Amino acid sequence: MLTQRQAALQGKITDQMAEVARQEGVTPEFIRDGVAKGTICIPANINHKNLVPRGVGEGLSTKVNANIGTSSAFPDPAPELDKLKAAIDAGADAVMDLSTGNNIDASRKAIIEHSTVMVGTVPIYQATVQAIKAHGKVTEMDKNDIFTVVEQQAKDGADFMTMHCGLTRQCLHNLISEGREMDIVSRGGSFLSGWMLHNGKENPFYEFYDEILDICAKYDVTISLGDGCRPGCLADATDRTQIQELLNLGELTQRAWAKGVQVMVEGPGHVPYNQIATNMQLQKRICHGAPFYVLGPLVTDIAPGYDHITSAIGGTLAAFTGANFLCYVTPAEHLGLPDINDVREGVVAARIAGHAADVAKGLPSAVAQDLAMAKARKVLDWDKQLSLAIDPEKAKAIRAAKNKSSEEYCSMCGDYCAVKIMNEYMDEVKAKKNK
Amino acid sequence: MLTQRQAALQGKITDQMAEVARQEGVTPEFIRDGVAKGTICIPANINHKNLVPRGVGEGLSTKVNANIGTSSAFPDPAPELDKLKAAIDAGADAVMDLSTGNNIDASRKAIIEHSTVMVGTVPIYQATVQAIKAHGKVTEMDKNDIFTVVEQQAKDGADFMTMHCGLTRQCLHNLISEGREMDIVSRGGSFLSGWMLHNGKENPFYEFYDEILDICAKYDVTISLGDGCRPGCLADATDRTQIQELLNLGELTQRAWAKGVQVMVEGPGHVPYNQIATNMQLQKRICHGAPFYVLGPLVTDIAPGYDHITSAIGGTLAAFTGANFLCYVTPAEHLGLPDINDVREGVVAARIAGHAADVAKGLPSAVAQDLAMAKARKVLDWDKQLSLAIDPEKAKAIRAAKNKSSEEYCSMCGDYCAVKIMNEYMDEVKAKKNK
Repeated sequence: MLTQRQAALQGKITDQMAEVARQEGVTPEFIRDGVAKGTICIPANINHKNLVPRGVGEGLSTKVNANIGTSSAFPDPAPELDKLKAAIDAGADAVMDLSTGNNIDASRKAIIEHSTVMVGTVPIYQATVQAIKAHGKVTEMDKNDIFTVVEQQAKDGADFMTMHCGLTRQCLHNLISEGREMDIVSRGGSFLSGWMLHNGKENPFYEFYDEILDICAKYDVTISLGDGCRPGCLADATDRTQIQELLNLGELTQRAWAKGVQVMVEGPGHVPYNQIATNMQLQKRICHGAPFYVLGPLVTDIAPGYDHITSAIGGTLAAFTGANFLCYVTPAEHLGLPDINDVREGVVAARIAGHAADVAKGLPSAVAQDLAMAKARKVLDWDKQLSLAIDPEKAKAIRAAKNKSSEEYCSMCGDYCAVKIMNEYMDEVKAKKNK
Repeated sequence: MLTQRQAALQGKITDQMAEVARQEGVTPEFIRDGVAKGTICIPANINHKNLVPRGVGEGLSTKVNANIGTSSAFPDPAPELDKLKAAIDAGADAVMDLSTGNNIDASRKAIIEHSTVMVGTVPIYQATVQAIKAHGKVTEMDKNDIFTVVEQQAKDGADFMTMHCGLTRQCLHNLISEGREMDIVSRGGSFLSGWMLHNGKENPFYEFYDEILDICAKYDVTISLGDGCRPGCLADATDRTQIQELLNLGELTQRAWAKGVQVMVEGPGHVPYNQIATNMQLQKRICHGAPFYVLGPLVTDIAPGYDHITSAIGGTLAAFTGANFLCYVTPAEHLGLPDINDVREGVVAARIAGHAADVAKGLPSAVAQDLAMAKARKVLDWDKQLSLAIDPEKAKAIRAAKNKSSEEYCSMCGDYCAVKIMNEYMDEVKAKKNK
């Protein structure tokens, strides 16, 4: 078995590359070339049987991920399958199963089985939960605890896995010496930092990285190099701790590529708007063009309840200046576990960000969508406007609630509709011309 | 009576300038200097008695406007007063009364009477509605119909008035010769264009501009030079029609300043993300630094139901690159008249955009808010987090719905809260150091 990367390097176009080329309206050779260079990845575990693969990277449309999964406060896996469906229906290109509730294995297997989009996982979550069960505390976790989970999740069909391999003792040295407002806010990053600080040892994901890569290569798991040191507030953004980890991720990217493993790199986080473009350029240069997967970025800390919006603001600029994959943030962020409505709102907000950036970059298929909507608006074709909307159901519901049925205009301007008026007088101009 | 501008030019610091300086944490002289240069305006009609004036312009925090007012489909003024209250409670710095329903005079007087924030109007709306009533169609409207309304609205206390004075026959020539997907989508712009096209005459707001300015000077109405040619879809942005009008607005800005009248310039609209910074720079240069008041900009056409988000994305970039005043767009945009909840969501989304830009520009009071939130998050002080939120009520409601009361962490990560874990292990580090 060859990974997508190994096949690409041998000049082979796989079924997955052909499918991605078809979706994106580019040649299969463009995709193969990007996978070979590492600027494109196609997360597609050989054991994820019902996957419709998608590509992430340079020259492709911006992709969107939705995080789902149980937590200790909400351990029931059934609602998570409903969220999976809601995320896919809303247009997500990927989901991550972040379960930390009971029976993590069963949750994951069910999500992968039901998902036609790529599924990501974070093995350290399960390893931590199990280590606490087995040994009483996370600090007693050993290499075997971690590797057992990584192997199991890979075997179950996880298409990509977030592993915080670049969070080294040097990063923690920087964290302590420079100081930070919020230290580490990545969940996996905090487990590993706690373990490293307590035991005085190096991060096992870094120390045994080659063995991790062997597992990834075996199932063609795309490694998503996690940013355990991502800033948790604007004040911590782009500091020595964050950039130290990024430097490590650059090296780890090249080591993964050398072993035929596909790579994405993860990025922040909470970032002031004026630092976003710098962060994107830094990652692309340091990580040699590897696809960049960002969470947000959130452009302010003060808007809990609206963090899908703060993220859409940052995500648009990020995608315009280099990011390829946006992890959604929902209105529940910083407050609680998202429910199914939060999932829907989060996916659509992230899709808007990705689409706005794609239009700004001149992606023909994205530009065409906006033009089609403009033409439908000009002729007041409401059925067409609603069907072209990024969320047709919501647009239909609002129109129905605010207007009498089959109204020609909308209730905002009523009879004084600018479009109607201009159509009338422009027709008059044309009639005069034709006389 | 001197206008704020006339006083500033004479070196006088008015009560309004002193109040604005206090709000912004700058010196009164900074405000006076900006008002004299025209880079700052303080819309404050001498007849708006209960106004708490605010400044709009360079070096000040970004301001937010909420449009309210009746339409022919929803002519009842009472809900509009509720929306006024909701807008102010949500943090709007201004409202515009865009009423076109019955009894426009009564709606406006009530809104001004109840508003502590500045109130803007668009006289052409009322002039059109009345002309249709009086003459049967808008094309029969004469100069007197327009001037009667302008004078009345000024007398009633409108702090600023949108007038599309730059929409000239040359703009319409460009529109017809270049072609556009959506022609004119500004409501006032469509009334005037219809009138001009039908009658073959110049725009009366342009032809009799000096008389308009005399009325503005008399009551210290800030003229908000409307962009009747603003693009209604991405494909029309930054075309010859739009830029022709902007060139006219530049000249009209200088003519207003020469008569002691304060000026804002209005801008688009639907603009692709990659053209926003260009639009901001163009306006600032062409209009000699006059405050820029933008609607959106909306960065995609395909998201009806989410246009508060598409506008927050564009508004952040706009405010970061030059805009001083953001007109909100609500989730109802393109679908119907906003209700009270739409008003609230629209104001908060626009405030997030303005705040994110203010932080990015390094405005100290904005930066301090985010830092305070980070510190509250670090110590898991929920009461403080909720009170520091941009919309405390919504944040409280979400937390209450998703968590058991007095929970230390939130239900997203539950016991595996990264902040809790890091605090534990960082304490361990500190304890070791102190040994």
